Amino acid sequence: MAERSQSPLQKHLYEVIFGTETPAGKRFDLWLIWMIVLSVLVLMIDSVMWLQQSWQTALDIAEWVFTLAFAAEYCVRIYCSPQRRRYIFSFYGVVDLLSILPSFLELLMPGANFLLIVRLLRVLRIFRILKLVRYLTDANILVRAVVYSRHKIFVFFMSVLVLSVIFGSLMYLVEGPTNGFSSIPKSIYWTIVTITTVGYGDITPQTWLGQIIAAAAMLTGYSILAVPTGIFTAELSQEMQKQRVQLACKGCGKTGHETDAVYCRFCGHGLK
Amino acid sequence: MAERSQSPLQKHLYEVIFGTETPAGKRFDLWLIWMIVLSVLVLMIDSVMWLQQSWQTALDIAEWVFTLAFAAEYCVRIYCSPQRRRYIFSFYGVVDLLSILPSFLELLMPGANFLLIVRLLRVLRIFRILKLVRYLTDANILVRAVVYSRHKIFVFFMSVLVLSVIFGSLMYLVEGPTNGFSSIPKSIYWTIVTITTVGYGDITPQTWLGQIIAAAAMLTGYSILAVPTGIFTAELSQEMQKQRVQLACKGCGKTGHETDAVYCRFCGHGLK
Amino acid sequence: MAERSQSPLQKHLYEVIFGTETPAGKRFDLWLIWMIVLSVLVLMIDSVMWLQQSWQTALDIAEWVFTLAFAAEYCVRIYCSPQRRRYIFSFYGVVDLLSILPSFLELLMPGANFLLIVRLLRVLRIFRILKLVRYLTDANILVRAVVYSRHKIFVFFMSVLVLSVIFGSLMYLVEGPTNGFSSIPKSIYWTIVTITTVGYGDITPQTWLGQIIAAAAMLTGYSILAVPTGIFTAELSQEMQKQRVQLACKGCGKTGHETDAVYCRFCGHGLK
Amino acid sequence: MAERSQSPLQKHLYEVIFGTETPAGKRFDLWLIWMIVLSVLVLMIDSVMWLQQSWQTALDIAEWVFTLAFAAEYCVRIYCSPQRRRYIFSFYGVVDLLSILPSFLELLMPGANFLLIVRLLRVLRIFRILKLVRYLTDANILVRAVVYSRHKIFVFFMSVLVLSVIFGSLMYLVEGPTNGFSSIPKSIYWTIVTITTVGYGDITPQTWLGQIIAAAAMLTGYSILAVPTGIFTAELSQEMQKQRVQLACKGCGKTGHETDAVYCRFCGHGLK
Repeated sequence: MAERSQSPLQKHLYEVIFGTETPAGKRFDLWLIWMIVLSVLVLMIDSVMWLQQSWQTALDIAEWVFTLAFAAEYCVRIYCSPQRRRYIFSFYGVVDLLSILPSFLELLMPGANFLLIVRLLRVLRIFRILKLVRYLTDANILVRAVVYSRHKIFVFFMSVLVLSVIFGSLMYLVEGPTNGFSSIPKSIYWTIVTITTVGYGDITPQTWLGQIIAAAAMLTGYSILAVPTGIFTAELSQEMQKQRVQLACKGCGKTGHETDAVYCRFCGHGLK
Repeated sequence: MAERSQSPLQKHLYEVIFGTETPAGKRFDLWLIWMIVLSVLVLMIDSVMWLQQSWQTALDIAEWVFTLAFAAEYCVRIYCSPQRRRYIFSFYGVVDLLSILPSFLELLMPGANFLLIVRLLRVLRIFRILKLVRYLTDANILVRAVVYSRHKIFVFFMSVLVLSVIFGSLMYLVEGPTNGFSSIPKSIYWTIVTITTVGYGDITPQTWLGQIIAAAAMLTGYSILAVPTGIFTAELSQEMQKQRVQLACKGCGKTGHETDAVYCRFCGHGLK
Repeated sequence: MAERSQSPLQKHLYEVIFGTETPAGKRFDLWLIWMIVLSVLVLMIDSVMWLQQSWQTALDIAEWVFTLAFAAEYCVRIYCSPQRRRYIFSFYGVVDLLSILPSFLELLMPGANFLLIVRLLRVLRIFRILKLVRYLTDANILVRAVVYSRHKIFVFFMSVLVLSVIFGSLMYLVEGPTNGFSSIPKSIYWTIVTITTVGYGDITPQTWLGQIIAAAAMLTGYSILAVPTGIFTAELSQEMQKQRVQLACKGCGKTGHETDAVYCRFCGHGLK
Repeated sequence: MAERSQSPLQKHLYEVIFGTETPAGKRFDLWLIWMIVLSVLVLMIDSVMWLQQSWQTALDIAEWVFTLAFAAEYCVRIYCSPQRRRYIFSFYGVVDLLSILPSFLELLMPGANFLLIVRLLRVLRIFRILKLVRYLTDANILVRAVVYSRHKIFVFFMSVLVLSVIFGSLMYLVEGPTNGFSSIPKSIYWTIVTITTVGYGDITPQTWLGQIIAAAAMLTGYSILAVPTGIFTAELSQEMQKQRVQLACKGCGKTGHETDAVYCRFCGHGLK
């Protein structure tokens, strides 16, 4: 972790841009959130045909204001970061870069507007919204419950996929291409639509055997919703109970004792 | 809180109309509930074309009976309220006013029937039904659990919105206007329809890549339903455990006795 | 409770038909369950046009065999019941009667086949299936949890209805009859379809304001599903914890003590 | 359990193929998982018309490579198994056989390609994916919670079926064949689609009475989702609490210590 020595300006900028404790840092964060939300809104309006045609100039200007502002922010972040390489290759560093790149690429290749790659990059700017995640500090307990239950959730997802493959293949066999189940992948797509209880209705079983299998798939999906809910609820309950007693043991300093604990469960020191 | 001195009539009316303890107060409340439910029913019937045409006179009379009754109630509430200003600007005061205003406005502007603003105000009368909330006294524990979990629920809603923006933009890019995803806002609408497992089927993905992304959105929505359920269940469990007699045993000082306990389950000392 | 004196035959029949302890009683119950399931199946097949036409005679015979068997069972139940009046007017007595009545009514009014009232009574025979509920003895704990949470569930249902009325009226105003929202009751039906995340797609919002309100209704419905789940889970957890210690107090005979209880919470007697 | 004496080669193969502890056994398992996933993917691609036509030769070759590999695996499993009969008739033995049989049957009856029975057997190969279940060792606690709650889940399923029969019959009566409810079984299919909140929209109620009954079915389905979730969550919570160290403190005899506890939280005595 060899940190370069920073100039006073770099230190000050670092505190404002990366820090969240100082009043200046908080004000900067608030500004940034508004910039992100507004830039995403401009991107949305830009995609609505009739709005885009009547406000074309205003939208183009707004687009370039946001791109330049985010580009400036990106440069300053690199400038004041004590470990430049680490920031650039961090998750937020890549997001910051991807959110400004498409506009510049369009400038370099003016006739390339219609290329798929540019259209794809343009949408990447939407990831600017991920920057908001930084500010959801209240999400810690939820994230921890999700992290603790990730193994069980993974097992659940695998089971749903295996179920979808089996039900999908059965439906492909029973209904066949004449009723819209034109291939096994399409049948699996239908099964996921059904098991998750979304139910678009673009493909529906027509034969009585297909309808019986579909009913079985629905009841399965309806019931196994209990599994992720049960896993998450049980983990969250435990997580919230742990938060009950925050008082630290005077012997070893550890927290997380249950409400009826008289002695520390780590070092045996009396708690009261 | 400078209360005006009230005449005996005002005091009596106040007890009947605002109070819920006296027999007269209870009878008034019961009458009011029936009035509200009936007036909302009349409003509904009024919106059904063929019913409205055959019963026009009866519906108009009923509408005016209810409007006059609620207007009289509103005036008496103002008259007998010790703090008039506070009642008028309270939530229920505004609801009471809004539920009678539209009918009078239609009287003042007889030819304005077709104006949007009048149509909008007419529907506001439906808010009369909110008066019913007053009588759901059993809802306290539920409301408290909702209040305690509001921060986590807010984080969850933000996450769902961010997810919807990302999935919606991806689908706009992949499917495009030719398959019904005509703009990013419309794609976000489709994503919310899919993630909440509603699934109208008015817009559905047609390409294989779009169907894969749609399946991912469905599975995400199907699984994250666990999050609000887990939050609310954990809060409600804690709330219900708190309700176990809060009083401590005089013999050993321990708490956590069940509501129907007469003797302490730890030392056998009488609890009451 | 003045019971008539029963003959030995009546007593024996009572034990077999109403009782569930003796081997003969169990055998009778098993037969009855099969009869009910088969008679419901016959009724179903009878409603499928092409099956009904090809098997008409067999279905008619089966129908009359079941009707006569259930009629015989009904008569014997009345004959051997010690409190006849009480059985006849009990829930199961009425179900038993309703399940045989339609066939006899069709016999009495042979040309009345097409009358709505006869069609309605014919379907009542399906309630035979409710007799099965008697045999779901494992359902006690579930029923108890439902009973304890009925007040909270009622509050929840009222809230959903009020929400549906408000959302439905808004959508009627915003979308109007041209987009399928032809009346407030129809809009409320649409709202219930949306809030419960069923989402048929027979009526869908077309305007952008309608789609925003619809998205709000979906997210509301998606989140408040947490409420009945939370209520039921919390009640069921408590109910299952109560079952943990079944040992009865030697002092007062009551059970339901918690696992860490040393003294009976009802009489203070030592438990161990 | 009379085991045949095994040759050293058989013992070694048994350890590699059936065992999961040795490095060779683990490597074999990993290979097998990849083979299964790939063979299912080939089967899927084979069902997509345009992919099947352009890659026909490659797909046929892949199909035969997988079939021969699984056939070799099946033979070796029989060869090295100490109790052959038991393996062949075990669940996985039957799955192993069924996953290779269809390809050989097609070879034996080359012109039988179009027969339904062969199409049915071909799809059975998808059950190869069930072999993956062997590797989901993390699923134990989930499976145990499912097993413990199976009686209650069965009662729930029965109730849903009874509800579906009653609602379905009512809708058949109210809507009738003209609105798509062409028979009671079809109406029951519609009811399951509605109660599980899938909601395809291929059949929808058209009359106002039908829409009221449909709304009641939706609200019922929306609420009773709480039942399996509550059952599973309560069982899983108990299962997870049981995992808290079962050992009692030697000092005071109390149990219920957390898994990371070193000292008793009631008397401070060392736990290990």
